[in-house]
Amino acid sequence: MRYDVKDLSLSGMGRLRIEWAAKNMPVIASVAERFSASRPLEGIRIATCLHVTAETANLMLALKRGGANPVLCASNPLSTQDDVAANLVREHKIPVFAIKGEDNDTYYKHIAAALDHEPHITMDDGADLVTTLLSDRKDLIENIIGSTEETTTGVVRLKSMEREGVLKFPVIAVNDSQTKHFFDNRYGTGQSALDGIIRATNILLAGKRFVVCGYGWCGRGLAHTAKGLNAHVIVVEVDPIKALEAVMDGFDVMPIDEAAKVGEIFVTVAGNKSVIRGEHFEVMKNHAILANAGHFNVELDLIALEEMTVAKRKLRSFVVEHELKNGRHINILGEGRLINLAAAEGHPASVMDMSFANQALAAEYLVVNKGKLEPKVHVLPVEMDRQIALLKLKTMGYEIDTLSDEQASYLRGWREGT
Amino acid sequence: MRYDVKDLSLSGMGRLRIEWAAKNMPVIASVAERFSASRPLEGIRIATCLHVTAETANLMLALKRGGANPVLCASNPLSTQDDVAANLVREHKIPVFAIKGEDNDTYYKHIAAALDHEPHITMDDGADLVTTLLSDRKDLIENIIGSTEETTTGVVRLKSMEREGVLKFPVIAVNDSQTKHFFDNRYGTGQSALDGIIRATNILLAGKRFVVCGYGWCGRGLAHTAKGLNAHVIVVEVDPIKALEAVMDGFDVMPIDEAAKVGEIFVTVAGNKSVIRGEHFEVMKNHAILANAGHFNVELDLIALEEMTVAKRKLRSFVVEHELKNGRHINILGEGRLINLAAAEGHPASVMDMSFANQALAAEYLVVNKGKLEPKVHVLPVEMDRQIALLKLKTMGYEIDTLSDEQASYLRGWREGT
Amino acid sequence: MRYDVKDLSLSGMGRLRIEWAAKNMPVIASVAERFSASRPLEGIRIATCLHVTAETANLMLALKRGGANPVLCASNPLSTQDDVAANLVREHKIPVFAIKGEDNDTYYKHIAAALDHEPHITMDDGADLVTTLLSDRKDLIENIIGSTEETTTGVVRLKSMEREGVLKFPVIAVNDSQTKHFFDNRYGTGQSALDGIIRATNILLAGKRFVVCGYGWCGRGLAHTAKGLNAHVIVVEVDPIKALEAVMDGFDVMPIDEAAKVGEIFVTVAGNKSVIRGEHFEVMKNHAILANAGHFNVELDLIALEEMTVAKRKLRSFVVEHELKNGRHINILGEGRLINLAAAEGHPASVMDMSFANQALAAEYLVVNKGKLEPKVHVLPVEMDRQIALLKLKTMGYEIDTLSDEQASYLRGWREGT
Amino acid sequence: MRYDVKDLSLSGMGRLRIEWAAKNMPVIASVAERFSASRPLEGIRIATCLHVTAETANLMLALKRGGANPVLCASNPLSTQDDVAANLVREHKIPVFAIKGEDNDTYYKHIAAALDHEPHITMDDGADLVTTLLSDRKDLIENIIGSTEETTTGVVRLKSMEREGVLKFPVIAVNDSQTKHFFDNRYGTGQSALDGIIRATNILLAGKRFVVCGYGWCGRGLAHTAKGLNAHVIVVEVDPIKALEAVMDGFDVMPIDEAAKVGEIFVTVAGNKSVIRGEHFEVMKNHAILANAGHFNVELDLIALEEMTVAKRKLRSFVVEHELKNGRHINILGEGRLINLAAAEGHPASVMDMSFANQALAAEYLVVNKGKLEPKVHVLPVEMDRQIALLKLKTMGYEIDTLSDEQASYLRGWREGT
Repeated sequence: MRYDVKDLSLSGMGRLRIEWAAKNMPVIASVAERFSASRPLEGIRIATCLHVTAETANLMLALKRGGANPVLCASNPLSTQDDVAANLVREHKIPVFAIKGEDNDTYYKHIAAALDHEPHITMDDGADLVTTLLSDRKDLIENIIGSTEETTTGVVRLKSMEREGVLKFPVIAVNDSQTKHFFDNRYGTGQSALDGIIRATNILLAGKRFVVCGYGWCGRGLAHTAKGLNAHVIVVEVDPIKALEAVMDGFDVMPIDEAAKVGEIFVTVAGNKSVIRGEHFEVMKNHAILANAGHFNVELDLIALEEMTVAKRKLRSFVVEHELKNGRHINILGEGRLINLAAAEGHPASVMDMSFANQALAAEYLVVNKGKLEPKVHVLPVEMDRQIALLKLKTMGYEIDTLSDEQASYLRGWREGT
Repeated sequence: MRYDVKDLSLSGMGRLRIEWAAKNMPVIASVAERFSASRPLEGIRIATCLHVTAETANLMLALKRGGANPVLCASNPLSTQDDVAANLVREHKIPVFAIKGEDNDTYYKHIAAALDHEPHITMDDGADLVTTLLSDRKDLIENIIGSTEETTTGVVRLKSMEREGVLKFPVIAVNDSQTKHFFDNRYGTGQSALDGIIRATNILLAGKRFVVCGYGWCGRGLAHTAKGLNAHVIVVEVDPIKALEAVMDGFDVMPIDEAAKVGEIFVTVAGNKSVIRGEHFEVMKNHAILANAGHFNVELDLIALEEMTVAKRKLRSFVVEHELKNGRHINILGEGRLINLAAAEGHPASVMDMSFANQALAAEYLVVNKGKLEPKVHVLPVEMDRQIALLKLKTMGYEIDTLSDEQASYLRGWREGT
Repeated sequence: MRYDVKDLSLSGMGRLRIEWAAKNMPVIASVAERFSASRPLEGIRIATCLHVTAETANLMLALKRGGANPVLCASNPLSTQDDVAANLVREHKIPVFAIKGEDNDTYYKHIAAALDHEPHITMDDGADLVTTLLSDRKDLIENIIGSTEETTTGVVRLKSMEREGVLKFPVIAVNDSQTKHFFDNRYGTGQSALDGIIRATNILLAGKRFVVCGYGWCGRGLAHTAKGLNAHVIVVEVDPIKALEAVMDGFDVMPIDEAAKVGEIFVTVAGNKSVIRGEHFEVMKNHAILANAGHFNVELDLIALEEMTVAKRKLRSFVVEHELKNGRHINILGEGRLINLAAAEGHPASVMDMSFANQALAAEYLVVNKGKLEPKVHVLPVEMDRQIALLKLKTMGYEIDTLSDEQASYLRGWREGT
Repeated sequence: MRYDVKDLSLSGMGRLRIEWAAKNMPVIASVAERFSASRPLEGIRIATCLHVTAETANLMLALKRGGANPVLCASNPLSTQDDVAANLVREHKIPVFAIKGEDNDTYYKHIAAALDHEPHITMDDGADLVTTLLSDRKDLIENIIGSTEETTTGVVRLKSMEREGVLKFPVIAVNDSQTKHFFDNRYGTGQSALDGIIRATNILLAGKRFVVCGYGWCGRGLAHTAKGLNAHVIVVEVDPIKALEAVMDGFDVMPIDEAAKVGEIFVTVAGNKSVIRGEHFEVMKNHAILANAGHFNVELDLIALEEMTVAKRKLRSFVVEHELKNGRHINILGEGRLINLAAAEGHPASVMDMSFANQALAAEYLVVNKGKLEPKVHVLPVEMDRQIALLKLKTMGYEIDTLSDEQASYLRGWREGT
């Protein structure tokens, strides 16, 4: 078996970490249970490009129990938990290609290794796997049943492929399930991005001018959580509807040109490139802190920053201080990569539970509907969403109402009025 | 000119009220300005069934400036501002059929009067106009260019009509514009329903067990606002996804059977009938307070309540105390009708500004696309949403960013990855 | 019996209003019960100068059941509920001197009438009664057992009297009981001042720049509640400790000179005069809204405003628009008087329950300790505070823990360490 | 020079950490500047027993610049940052006695070593130094000018000593300065205790039933912050006034007997022993998580827990899982010691800035007032508080108003009324 992980001897620690995550993943456990009985993925090779964390490990195990033959590579060079990778290889015989801190070259070698698996299904977190496949490994297309995608960023890329007509197989936008983006993006990013920033800096958020660039589901979560910790939150947006929502939610809203001058902490989560640029670094306060919580490390224009930098120091594990030509200092956290994965442990298990239940069900859905789905971006049926939510509620100890026949009939009808 | 209003001598007060609302309605003012120049609704008869408030008056005036010939009837027997009705008739020569507190019979006579106007377009708030038209005045169908609908409840009814094939003309679901339901339903209902409850009762919300039945956009707004006033909020839902969202937002979630026993204040905003029923009234605490913020007064089962009642007293303007057979007392606010309109003044002007800008643009859109739209429920193009939001932001003094060419191109592309 | 109220025929409405408040006043009811048995105030004449509301009526009735002979005058010309005044006179034979909207002259005549009662005890809300007594009716001093005071403003005045040596009898600062200022000032003002502003204007708070002048207990309550309704709150302070607390609570903090330029709604609650002055009115945005929630109507410099005004219009019941020489307009709510009493119904009963339980116990405490207290400002023993809180919790259905002997002993000891 | 630290070679890392903290400690920097010029502590030996963190290091350096001769030992066996300890010894020649994870015996040897310094002043964080001094080293009493205390817990112990008459020198309750307990206890503990819990567990707080035992300043901070992260917060209290405040703040309040059954995460911050006991562990849900944020590790009855435990496993760095006889599992974080220091890095620098400015000023105050202060617990003059707050605001970029003469005179007067 081929694999590339840091150190197999970390496997024991990885086992405990996977077990710990499992305690908050009852939904994926329930899916795994059913999979184990019905084996819906029997013989299916799945190439997965995901953050190699304890939560992902639980997904891998569920896929395997469903009969699948999965391989795993990292979706971000900084997000791998090396002990988890070791455990998947040693104890579960799942090939993993991922080492925390790998360089760009290795990152893409690992993707290539995952594709060498000749998958029937690919699972992506940012669409790097599908992009590589469609660009460099077109030979694999004919075997592909379909693909799944975890992130907003990946879905945006895939819809561009669809528009350009280069998408050759169906993709399930797992991100667009309600039990994914309403929870993982909002509560998950909300807590874990702050967690990453606080672990990296130990800075008090109360009273700080905290700039959130992007008010999508992740940005909303981040802005509200920072408000919950008493930060003074400023939102930067390009979409007027979202900007107006931010205003009505009580936040300050201003262009990045203005925010750059007043902010003390900046977090990009816009899903776009060069959200904060040279002209903004130039006017920032001394000791400003910058992090990224968007998928790719392109949201801070680090190339421009390098050109403005006269000296650099590593001040703490995930803090690099840049001294600028203007004499001021700027601190970049986690190399501008996803801060919740670089400096903390990513989204907590209890939200990944639902995201990954969607992933597992999406794989099953692709197999069941093999040949029936157009080469487009699809969403899972809302009924699956409801089932996941209901299972989650039940395991959390919550009971809810159901519609009576009379009420259901009322909703279907239209004749009853004032 | 036919009309039916309470007292024309109230016109002066109505004028001030309309002017006061106008101060917070810059978007509809801007639409009116453009309409006044281009007259896109020249000669179009519009029958509108809306809450007869100062904000609606500003919509009526905008339609008229666009060349339309509008008539207005009430969409709720308790929501009419009689002074506004008087002013529209006396000063603006717009026929109005609405008297606050009118009985059900008069309510439907007023709807009939509006339909007698032989409209090209109808505007609804709850779909009573369209329902009546499709049931009793089928002769009018052939003249209809299309219809617009303001509420979630109305849209649900219209989609039922569409499903059953009885919808004979296109309808614009104004409610489904983002600049409508994200703002009016959430912030508007959030504040105004509480306002209605507080005006009716003068009760302190801090520390009260406040039960919100329904966690749609209105319910979310209400729950968050009540939390903002330090109530202890309990959410009742039938949709597991929404229920889970309520849990993750930090609220208590339970079935109405349980909530009925612990709640002190109950508000229904579920868009369904008999959300709180006899068995729930039976177990409520002494002096429980109940209100409805959903469109129709069917959410509280008042018929069941009457049967359980041994005595009634009017304690305050909008509070009726029911003494039950079990010896306990229950207070019903505003006869179970939309509490923000019954006991307060409805949504504040600054959100209705956007909702009604959507209404005015929807009317124009129907005229421009006459004959091209299928007899289905449609949504306005998102570009209109963006324009409304941008205009709103600008008039509130907020500036936002726009995508650079490089950023727009990045979003369109898919090749750039990790 | 002498009295001066608006209209005795309003008594029936007043009865219902008093009864409605009583439902949320279980603590004062419990005090009244005990008073009724032990008659601790037998024969004591009490002159009270309080807001003449339904809640105050419940205090009056409790005092009477304790054997006292109370008389009541208004503590603010705009805060009287005329129906309550009528009911106290007609049904309970308690002399009341208060008419909503009375002029300044009548206001002081009513205070004089209350003093003509030759009280043993005075109860004040703002210290007007004691001030008049010490200035103009020194003959009454010898009969006085002591006085009580309800407000922060009154306590500040009384401490000045104490410092100057003019205070001739003991005063209980009811305001300084924890069950008073932690609850009434914070949650009471927080909700009711917003209620007053919303009733007066029907304006949406979400997204509005809302300036709170003063971050004492009332200001904190107001700022947090406005934040809870999604306003963008700006705090103005002179005390650096409070200003820093406001910053750490996530609010914007700036001098009034700056706030005046950006605010859309301003509320003074500073307990000082001329908090917003001519130079501030001059730079305000067109249509700015101003209200006061502090005790006296001196916080807005209305005299300066009058001099700048070229025209005035009454736009709504409690809204007067001033057109300034600079062409802009400013709206003053409720004549700059306590907005929660002028435009709404004052603090809800459930907080006044505790404030007035403190008042009743303070009267008893003065009688019990007659002759033993120095002519200073005193606070009630914390044990009374605890009893009130415990009773309140119990009636709200909450149970709490008590210290075990071991725990109590641990807290008394000091030897047990790391 | 005597000292006992883990490894002097960590000094370089310690230097960076101290420098990083200094960036958010402008107030102590300003005090240090002044001290450096006036040398108010020349020749004063100070024994300090504080958490050995980067923030404390900045205090040590300020004292030294003021002429003092300080020695430092740990105030908690788990809270030492070994790199900081190394740096103070190697680079600044300050004797430190502290090793992270030291046993109880070593802990007290280190305290003894600090006392061997024969201090003129002691600085405590929990009163272990003073307690040891008064119990075992009475010979040192005669040299003592006075002492300072950082925590609520320590102040409670010192007041017991005062009551029993064993306190032989004045103590400054630094904790009771407003710029200490309003900020450090509330915002500091609020953020850092959650930080410790999240680092230890990576658990999502949204939707979790989060039990806070104790609603003092620390508990309030914790409860509000957990609410800000969307937890469902339950408060346990013994003081009815605080319990009522928790209810009015919108929290659930119940006895620990009930909370034990429903909670998922428990944090004690009550300042008392055995707040959660055997009978509570017994009824907890499987996988409940428990942490302590109070000063001493006595709040969880770990002795009782040990007796109920059939097996233990270390699952993560600061997580020990206890398997109970009833088959359920309970997770104890950080051995029940201050979780923000055990699993995270303690309070962020920006609040310790003010707390330690108070400490430094308290030392100076003791020297200036040598011989004039009674052997009691004292509070620093409020004017010092104001100066600290003002300096803090200024360095954060905030400007505030000051009273005009007219306003100051209004506050001093009492004659101006309605």
